[in-house]
Amino acid sequence: MESEKIEVISAEEDKHGGVILTVNKSMDSLFFASKLKASMSHWKQQGKKGMWINLPIQHSNLVDSAVKAGFRYHHAEPDYLMLVYWIPDTPDTLPANASHRVGVGAFVINSKREVLVVQESDGRFGGTGVWKMPTGAVDEGEDICNAIVREVKEETGIETEFVEVLAFRQSHESFFQKSDLFFVCMLQPRSFDIQSQASEIEAAKWMPVEDYAAQPFVQENELFDFIAKICLTKLDGNYTGFSSICTSTSSGKRTYLYFNNDTIASHLLASKHE
Amino acid sequence: MESEKIEVISAEEDKHGGVILTVNKSMDSLFFASKLKASMSHWKQQGKKGMWINLPIQHSNLVDSAVKAGFRYHHAEPDYLMLVYWIPDTPDTLPANASHRVGVGAFVINSKREVLVVQESDGRFGGTGVWKMPTGAVDEGEDICNAIVREVKEETGIETEFVEVLAFRQSHESFFQKSDLFFVCMLQPRSFDIQSQASEIEAAKWMPVEDYAAQPFVQENELFDFIAKICLTKLDGNYTGFSSICTSTSSGKRTYLYFNNDTIASHLLASKHE
Repeated sequence: MESEKIEVISAEEDKHGGVILTVNKSMDSLFFASKLKASMSHWKQQGKKGMWINLPIQHSNLVDSAVKAGFRYHHAEPDYLMLVYWIPDTPDTLPANASHRVGVGAFVINSKREVLVVQESDGRFGGTGVWKMPTGAVDEGEDICNAIVREVKEETGIETEFVEVLAFRQSHESFFQKSDLFFVCMLQPRSFDIQSQASEIEAAKWMPVEDYAAQPFVQENELFDFIAKICLTKLDGNYTGFSSICTSTSSGKRTYLYFNNDTIASHLLASKHE
Repeated sequence: MESEKIEVISAEEDKHGGVILTVNKSMDSLFFASKLKASMSHWKQQGKKGMWINLPIQHSNLVDSAVKAGFRYHHAEPDYLMLVYWIPDTPDTLPANASHRVGVGAFVINSKREVLVVQESDGRFGGTGVWKMPTGAVDEGEDICNAIVREVKEETGIETEFVEVLAFRQSHESFFQKSDLFFVCMLQPRSFDIQSQASEIEAAKWMPVEDYAAQPFVQENELFDFIAKICLTKLDGNYTGFSSICTSTSSGKRTYLYFNNDTIASHLLASKHE
């Protein structure tokens, strides 16, 4: 058979009975199609389940051949497209694509009960005169408790320390079909001189927290109003959010766990070996 | 000029100064390339910033032309690929792709201090004899508090009611470069007869909670051990997680806010007009 003479595409086996093919050199689409056919036949004989193709964008001429061979899209990032093909006749158990974007908002309060606020030059609140808490998106691979410290620094120049997650909200269809998780974090300021350098920030200042909460855009929005009330309750010492603790898993990865450590911190920390 | 005679691709303007082109009929890739060139020139003249192409998988023959025209990948789902091109000379302000998958785990406890546990037939714990809490992935567009009720029902047949999020953890590179948020939820059982129908579940049962926490896979994993201690503390009435409240935003969307309602529930609920 023709396909048996053609070399298969270099591949790496994964831990779930699958195999990941990586295309790392340019080739003609017909040549790729025959290599792919040989590879599919080879991995099917090996009893593999999921076959993945990681296709860098510079080889976009090969996308069509993969789709014609039965592959479907799984996910894409700016520089590559991941395609997948499920070999068995049973329903696939392939992992879903990432479904959520994650955002953070900062409640930074100084000892004069002033909250750190910004005016945005763009987006939903651009040009509205609204003073809002600094917000931003969590980068891929970034921890929530670090992302919010970075955002506050970028937008206002203020150094802060993460205290806790006060609340979070989940919303849907925020961007095409994707969902969104937004974490409101309380931060302790470690510096006080505002120096805004971010292009999307028009102005930044310290504002009495009651003035913040009295703004119409807060009062007229049920969600913003709730969040402001939570912040005020926290400020009066009557609220506990989720603080973070860094734990290590069996595989050696370090991950943050967020929980209410009001009553069990001493218990948990006593048993933690760092 | 040639391109001026060619009809532009049908497009819809978005709220951020961008435009989304949708390809909804088959065409030759050269014809598409010239239509795309005309469209790019048209939207540039209109002062647009981001140009998106939503390309259904059946038109995979056109991917290469879009990339050659300067588009890059933004994201993909099984049935389409989204490409984007930033027209201005300034750095792009395009929204990032979804970065996180979201999972849920259930702490379901009956009045005899027994926790609902399962043995999985596949994956990391398949064939290990480990009794673990039911877990699963949150579907796109699904609320955390509903996803966990669905998962428990699918895996054990037990009807439950969401009580609160006890804790959550964030981890990275869980799947290719994507991050992962996992929410541990406490649920109140509303039925007690176990009927497991999910193919990935080997067995399910009610297990004394102390026996659950004493299993080596829990004790030897810092994170699992923490979570078990949080559950036990909750059970003894000394812990408050985040419960959920459904709020409506100005755009009429309904979103869940998760927060500690131990001290401010009455205050917040009093001002909530449902």
